[in-house]
Amino acid sequence: MNPYLKENSWSIIEESFDPKKHEISESVFSIGNGHMGQRANFEETYSGKSLQGSYMAGVYYPDKTRVGWWKNGYPEYFAKVLNSTNWIGLRIYIDGEELDINKVKITNFVRELNMREGFLKRKFTAYLHEDKGIDIEAVRFVSAADKEIGAVSYQITPFNFNGNLEICSYLDGDIKNTDANYDEKFWEEAAQNAFANRAHVTVRTKKLNFQLCSLMETQIYRDGEKLRISAVPEESSKYAAVNFHADLIQGKTVTIYKYAANVTNRDHEESLLYQAAEEALDKAVTKGFNLLKEEQAEAWKKKWNDSDIVIDGDLSAQQGIRFNIFQLNQTYNGEDARLNIGPKGFTGEKYGGSTYWDTEAYCLPFYLATSDNQTARNLLVYRHNHLGKAKENAAKLGFEKGAFYPMVTMNGEESHNEWEITFEEIHRNGAIAHAIYNFTNYTGNTSYLLDKGVEVLVEISRFWEERVNFVTDKGVYMILGVTGPNEYENNVNNNWYTNRIASWTLEYTLEVLEFIKSEHPQLYREWTGSLALKEKETEKWKDIINRMYYPIEEKKEIFLQQDNFMDKELMHVNELDQKHLPINQNWSWDRILRSCFIKQADVLQGLHFLNHEFDIYTKKRNFDFYEPMTVHESSLSPCVHSILACELGYKEKAYEMYLRTARLDLDNYNNDTEDGCHITSMAGTWMSVVQGFGGMKVIKGVLHFNPLIPDQWDAFSFKVVFRGARLFVHVDKEQITIANEADAAEVFVNSEKVVLEPGRKISISHR
Amino acid sequence: MNPYLKENSWSIIEESFDPKKHEISESVFSIGNGHMGQRANFEETYSGKSLQGSYMAGVYYPDKTRVGWWKNGYPEYFAKVLNSTNWIGLRIYIDGEELDINKVKITNFVRELNMREGFLKRKFTAYLHEDKGIDIEAVRFVSAADKEIGAVSYQITPFNFNGNLEICSYLDGDIKNTDANYDEKFWEEAAQNAFANRAHVTVRTKKLNFQLCSLMETQIYRDGEKLRISAVPEESSKYAAVNFHADLIQGKTVTIYKYAANVTNRDHEESLLYQAAEEALDKAVTKGFNLLKEEQAEAWKKKWNDSDIVIDGDLSAQQGIRFNIFQLNQTYNGEDARLNIGPKGFTGEKYGGSTYWDTEAYCLPFYLATSDNQTARNLLVYRHNHLGKAKENAAKLGFEKGAFYPMVTMNGEESHNEWEITFEEIHRNGAIAHAIYNFTNYTGNTSYLLDKGVEVLVEISRFWEERVNFVTDKGVYMILGVTGPNEYENNVNNNWYTNRIASWTLEYTLEVLEFIKSEHPQLYREWTGSLALKEKETEKWKDIINRMYYPIEEKKEIFLQQDNFMDKELMHVNELDQKHLPINQNWSWDRILRSCFIKQADVLQGLHFLNHEFDIYTKKRNFDFYEPMTVHESSLSPCVHSILACELGYKEKAYEMYLRTARLDLDNYNNDTEDGCHITSMAGTWMSVVQGFGGMKVIKGVLHFNPLIPDQWDAFSFKVVFRGARLFVHVDKEQITIANEADAAEVFVNSEKVVLEPGRKISISHR
Repeated sequence: MNPYLKENSWSIIEESFDPKKHEISESVFSIGNGHMGQRANFEETYSGKSLQGSYMAGVYYPDKTRVGWWKNGYPEYFAKVLNSTNWIGLRIYIDGEELDINKVKITNFVRELNMREGFLKRKFTAYLHEDKGIDIEAVRFVSAADKEIGAVSYQITPFNFNGNLEICSYLDGDIKNTDANYDEKFWEEAAQNAFANRAHVTVRTKKLNFQLCSLMETQIYRDGEKLRISAVPEESSKYAAVNFHADLIQGKTVTIYKYAANVTNRDHEESLLYQAAEEALDKAVTKGFNLLKEEQAEAWKKKWNDSDIVIDGDLSAQQGIRFNIFQLNQTYNGEDARLNIGPKGFTGEKYGGSTYWDTEAYCLPFYLATSDNQTARNLLVYRHNHLGKAKENAAKLGFEKGAFYPMVTMNGEESHNEWEITFEEIHRNGAIAHAIYNFTNYTGNTSYLLDKGVEVLVEISRFWEERVNFVTDKGVYMILGVTGPNEYENNVNNNWYTNRIASWTLEYTLEVLEFIKSEHPQLYREWTGSLALKEKETEKWKDIINRMYYPIEEKKEIFLQQDNFMDKELMHVNELDQKHLPINQNWSWDRILRSCFIKQADVLQGLHFLNHEFDIYTKKRNFDFYEPMTVHESSLSPCVHSILACELGYKEKAYEMYLRTARLDLDNYNNDTEDGCHITSMAGTWMSVVQGFGGMKVIKGVLHFNPLIPDQWDAFSFKVVFRGARLFVHVDKEQITIANEADAAEVFVNSEKVVLEPGRKISISHR
Repeated sequence: MNPYLKENSWSIIEESFDPKKHEISESVFSIGNGHMGQRANFEETYSGKSLQGSYMAGVYYPDKTRVGWWKNGYPEYFAKVLNSTNWIGLRIYIDGEELDINKVKITNFVRELNMREGFLKRKFTAYLHEDKGIDIEAVRFVSAADKEIGAVSYQITPFNFNGNLEICSYLDGDIKNTDANYDEKFWEEAAQNAFANRAHVTVRTKKLNFQLCSLMETQIYRDGEKLRISAVPEESSKYAAVNFHADLIQGKTVTIYKYAANVTNRDHEESLLYQAAEEALDKAVTKGFNLLKEEQAEAWKKKWNDSDIVIDGDLSAQQGIRFNIFQLNQTYNGEDARLNIGPKGFTGEKYGGSTYWDTEAYCLPFYLATSDNQTARNLLVYRHNHLGKAKENAAKLGFEKGAFYPMVTMNGEESHNEWEITFEEIHRNGAIAHAIYNFTNYTGNTSYLLDKGVEVLVEISRFWEERVNFVTDKGVYMILGVTGPNEYENNVNNNWYTNRIASWTLEYTLEVLEFIKSEHPQLYREWTGSLALKEKETEKWKDIINRMYYPIEEKKEIFLQQDNFMDKELMHVNELDQKHLPINQNWSWDRILRSCFIKQADVLQGLHFLNHEFDIYTKKRNFDFYEPMTVHESSLSPCVHSILACELGYKEKAYEMYLRTARLDLDNYNNDTEDGCHITSMAGTWMSVVQGFGGMKVIKGVLHFNPLIPDQWDAFSFKVVFRGARLFVHVDKEQITIANEADAAEVFVNSEKVVLEPGRKISISHR
C-alpha cells in the first residue's frame, strides 16, 4: 500500500503520472452509468502497461471452463464479462510524430475523477521536443441521462510552435479479454464503415449472438470554431476510423469532440440496431458536449441528493465513502432487471460473472435506502427470473426438487468450478431468501412477496428440506459437507450459519404462507396449486425447524462455527508473526483449512443478518470469540464486524474495521486494484456508516437509530428513504438530528420513540 | 463390459478385428521389458482410431500445470510419462496401394499375446482387391535379455497374384502426448539420418534434456533368403526412414525384419549415445531375429519359474492371474533404482507421473515374494533417493522439519494438483514407512534399514510430529484436515487410518532406533549425529503414541473412519438403485462426499497393513460394517477386501472380490482400458491369491499359511521366495502341499509349525 491520491471531498485526484500506478488508476478513475463503463485508459496511444477496458452491462461470453481435474457437476462454461469495442480511442500525430505518454516528456499531469458531476478529466503538458510543447485537456463521461451515449472532449494547445496535426479517431472492436481461459477472442466481425465524420463498428459474439453497435461522430474545433475539414475514412475488420488533418497554431486550442452511441441487441431488435445508434447519436450531437455535460451534472446531483454521506473532520474518510457511493451508483441503477452488480462492476474483468451472494448480502441495503423501491425490487426480480435455472441446477446436482441458486452467474447458470464452493457453499440460497425478507421488512411493500417472492421461498425451502439429513440416533437434522461464508473452511459438517439460515428460511417461508393464507386466501389457493405445495412438505419443514441441530460450545456459550471447531489449535491473529499475513498469500491451502483463522464473518454473519434474534450478550460473546481469529482477507469482512462492533460499543474496533473497508481501492490495500475496484464491498462500507455508526435497523418494520460517532469524526450525516419518509440524519458529538422531507415516520432513536412529521427536524442528545 | 478375448491359460487371444475394441486391445496386448514398452499398435498404417504409444522408462516431461483456481502450494509442473519415438512403423504399398487395415477387407484376424514366451503375434488375410489377397504375420517383442532392443518380424505372402511391393521402414520421433495440458509437443529435433538399410533419429525433450537415440536396421528376405536390394534413405525433422522395392511372387513369403535399439542419456553419456545404440544394434543384428526370440523365451521362462500361479478348474481365473503377473514383470524388474511402477506402466499415458503409494501398498509384496531382495530393495532406495525432495516438499507446505513424500511423482517432486489430495492425503507417508517394515520383516535383511531406512523413518516421524495438534481440553493428539485412502471423503478430521499409521510410524521408528542402539551402537551414534536427533523429539513421539486420539463407535465396537462418520445417512450399496452406480460417474462430488459410500478400503486398509495388531473379532466387526458401504470404485479396493474376507472365512465374498480385480482389464470392467492397463492393481490380484486364498502372512519374521480354496477352483499353486527358501505351494480341496527347493524354512500351516528341509515336500489336510 502506497497512497498516492490527493485527499479531496468531491474528487479523486492524481497529481503526477507514474506508469507503475497507471493500471491502478485506470481502475479507480473508471466511469460508468449502469449500461456501460470504461476504465480510465488514455484516449491517445499509450504503449506502456495498461488494461484497456470497455464493458457493456449484460453482454457476456460463455468461455469454456478450464480445470485441472474434472468433477461431475462442473459447468461446461464460465460466463465472463466481455471487454468490448474501444470507443474513446484517438491517435494524435504532431508533425508526423505520435503522441504517446510512454515516450514523450510529460509535466503538470493531473487526473481527476469529478464525483459530484460524474466526469473524468485529465490535463498535462507534453513535450515532443523541447521546442514543441502542447497542453492537453481531456474530459469524458458516459451519460447518466442518455445511457447509450459517451462523450469525449480532447483539447490540444501548442504553446511554443506552429505545426501540423493529424488525428485518427477510431472505434476498435477487435478486443480480447485478458482473462480468456484459452487465449481466444470472443468477438467476431459483423459490419463496419466510415463516412464523412462518422465511423461505425458492429461486432457479434462467437456464441450467444450478442451484438454491439458503436457509432461515433468526431468534430474538430479551433478556439471554439468548428473547422470545415474533410475526414479520410478507414475501415478494416472490426475497426473503423476517420482521419483529419489540421494546422496547429501557437496559443490556439484545437478541440476534438467524440460522441459515441453504444447500443446492443439486448435493448434493440437486431435489424434496428444501427438505426437505434443513429437516433441516439443524432440526439447527442444536436445537444453538443456542453449540454450533455450539464445534463450529466444534473443527473448526478439527483443521485447525490438521494445517497450522499457527509463526514466532517476526516477528509480521508469523506473521500472514501463518496468514492464508494459514486462507484455503486455508476454500476447499478435498477433500470433493468436482467442486470446485477458484478464484483468489479465496469472497472475490470476479473472473476467473470456478474452476480454473487454479495448482491443480496451487501448491496441490497444500499439500494433499498437510497433509491426508489423499484431499484431494489429489480435485484429480487433478477433472481426470480433465474428460478427456472436454479431448479435445473438443483436437478443437475441430484436433487429431486427445489431450487439451488448458482455461486456465480450471469444468466442464471452456474459459472464457478471449485467443488468446495460451487457445490458446497450452499448458504447463498439463504441469502437470496433473506433478501426477500429484507426488502419486505424495509419497504413494507408486499407486492414482490405476493407476486414472485413466495415462489422463490418455497423452492429454496424445498432445497433445504432435501439437503438436510436426519440422524436417527440423535433425533436431529444436520447439514453435512458444506462451506460456510468463511471460505477458509471447506466441506465441514453443521456450519452454524448454514444450519441457521436454512432453518430461518423454512420459518420465514411458513410465516409468509400463513400470511398469504389469512390475508389473501384466493392468492394462497393459486400459489399452492401452481407450486403443488403439499401439507406433508410444510409439516416436514416444521419438523426440521423443531429438530435442527446447532453446534454450540457450552462452556463459552457460543455458537460453534461448525462441528469440532474447538479441536483446532485456537489462537488470535495478533499472536501470529506478521510475516504470515495475509495467510492466503503465504500459507498452503491445507494449512489455512486446519488453522482456526477465519476469512470473513461466518457465525457473525448470522448475528448480522438475524440481528433481532439475539440478545446483546450473545452477540458480545460470539464477537469476542471469533473476531480475534478473523483475518478479514475478504473485502466483505470488515463491514460486518464494524457494524457489530458499533452495536457492542467497541468504538475503536468499529473504526479500525471501517478504515479497512472505506479506502480499500483508493489506497490499494489488497494490492490488486489494478484488476478493478471491489464494487460489491463498497456497499458494505455504506452499511458500516449507516447501519454501523448510524445504528440504523429495521425491526419488524420499524426504523431504529442507535448512533455511535467515532472519535476521529466531528460529525457525519446520511440520507435514507424509508417507506414514505425521506430522512436526513446528522450525528455529531452531542446529538443526533433527523429531518424528514416527506411522509411522516415513526422511528426509535436510542430506543426512544419519535414521530417525525413531514418537514420536521428533531434532535436528541446521545445517552 | 463385453468380453471378447478368448480364454487360454498362457495367451491372450483376439480372434477377429473390431475397430471399436482396437484401443482396448492396444492396451491389453502391450509389451514391455522394464526399460521400454510399446502399445499393441499395428506396424503398418492404420487410419482408424488408435492411441499410438511407445514409452521409455524414466523419460518424462514437466508439463505446465493446468488448473481452474490456483491454490498456494500447487506444483508448477506435472511430470508426465513421455510418449516417444515410434520404432515399429512400416508403410506397406502393394502395386502402389497402401495397406491400411481401416480401409481394406480383413479376414482371419488373430492377435495373440504369448505370455509364456513374451511376444506379440498377429495374423490376418488382407484383400486389397478380390484377386489381390495377402497373408500377413507380424511378431514383435522388446527383449527381456537385451533391454534396449526391440525386434519385429513382418511377413507378407501374396496367395493369388504377383505384384510390386514398396516398403517404408521408419522411425518417427515427432510424437505428441495425448494428455498434454496445452496441446504442446514435448520433443524437439536433435539429429536424424538414414543410410544403407539403417535409420537413426535422436530427439531431445524441450526441458530437462532427456535424449532418446533410436537406431534401426531393416532387412528383407524372401522365403528365407536375404534380398540384395538397395534402400532409398529419407530424412526429415525428427524422422528417418529407408524405402525398399521388391517383387511379390505368388505363394512366396517376404519377411521384413526390423531391429531397433532405443538408448537414452539416462544410461549413456550424451556424446556416446549414438555409439551405444550402434553397439546394441550390431549385437542384435548379429544374433538375428530367431535367436533373439529364443533368448526372450528363455528370459521369460525364468520369470515364470519365479512367479507363476496355477489355477486348476477355472481357465478364466488362470488367464487373469497370469496376465497380471505378466504385466507386472513387463513393467518393473528392479534393475534401476531410479525407476518405479506407473499406474499404467508402459500401456498408456493417463495419470502421468510414475509413482503413487500404490507401489508401497500393493506392488512391494509381489516383488518381495517373486524376485531377489534387490528388486524390492530398489523400490525402497527410490524413496530414499527422493528424501531431499520430500523434505523440500514439507518445507514448501510450511513445515519446519520432516519429510512429506509427494502423492504423484517422477523425480521426487509433487506433480498432483488437487488440494484435497496433494496436500491432505498425507497417509501416503505412512505407507512409505510401512514398506520399510514390510521389507525388513519379510526378508530378515536389515541392511536397508540400517543404511537408509532409518533416515527415512526419522524424517517421516518428524513430519507426523509437526502435523498432529494437541487438544488441551481433551488431552489428546489429533490430525485435522486430511483425506484418507477413501478419497470419497475430503478434508476430514481424525481419519482413523491416518491417525493409526502415523502413530504406528512413530512406534516403529522408536523400535528401530532402540534396535540400532542396542545392536549397532556405533551406527546409532552416527545416525543420531547426522540426523541431529534429539531426545526431546523421541520423547514427543512417545507422548503422541500414548495420547493419540482414535475415533471409535462404542456401541458397535468399531473404529470410526473419521470423526462424525455416524452422522451420515448410513446405508448399504445394495440398497442403492443400480442406476446410480458407479457413483463417481453419476453423482456430483458433494453428494459423494456427504454420502456414506466408500471408494476403497480405509479402516480396512489399516486392518490389512497392521493385520497382526487386531484380533479376528475386531476385523470381523469392522469388515461387516464397512464392506457393505464400499463401492470399490478404485481398482485397488477389491484385493484388500478379498484378503480380509479369506481371513474371515467369507469364501463367497472373497471370490466375488477376487473376480473384480483379476480380469479388470481383460474384461474392461471399468470401461477405461483403452487408456492403458491398471498395472499397480495387478499386484493386488497377486496378493488376493497368495495372501488371500493362500493365507500367507509373515508375523514377526515367521511365515504362515492359512489357505482357503474357492469352490470354483479345483486347485491352485504359487511360488514364493522367503529368505533362503524357495517354496512351491499347492492347495487343493483336501490339502495344502509345500515343496521347498532351497534353504530350510520353518513355517506355520494352519497355525501348525512345520519345518521344511531343502528339497522336502509336505502335505497337510485342511482343517
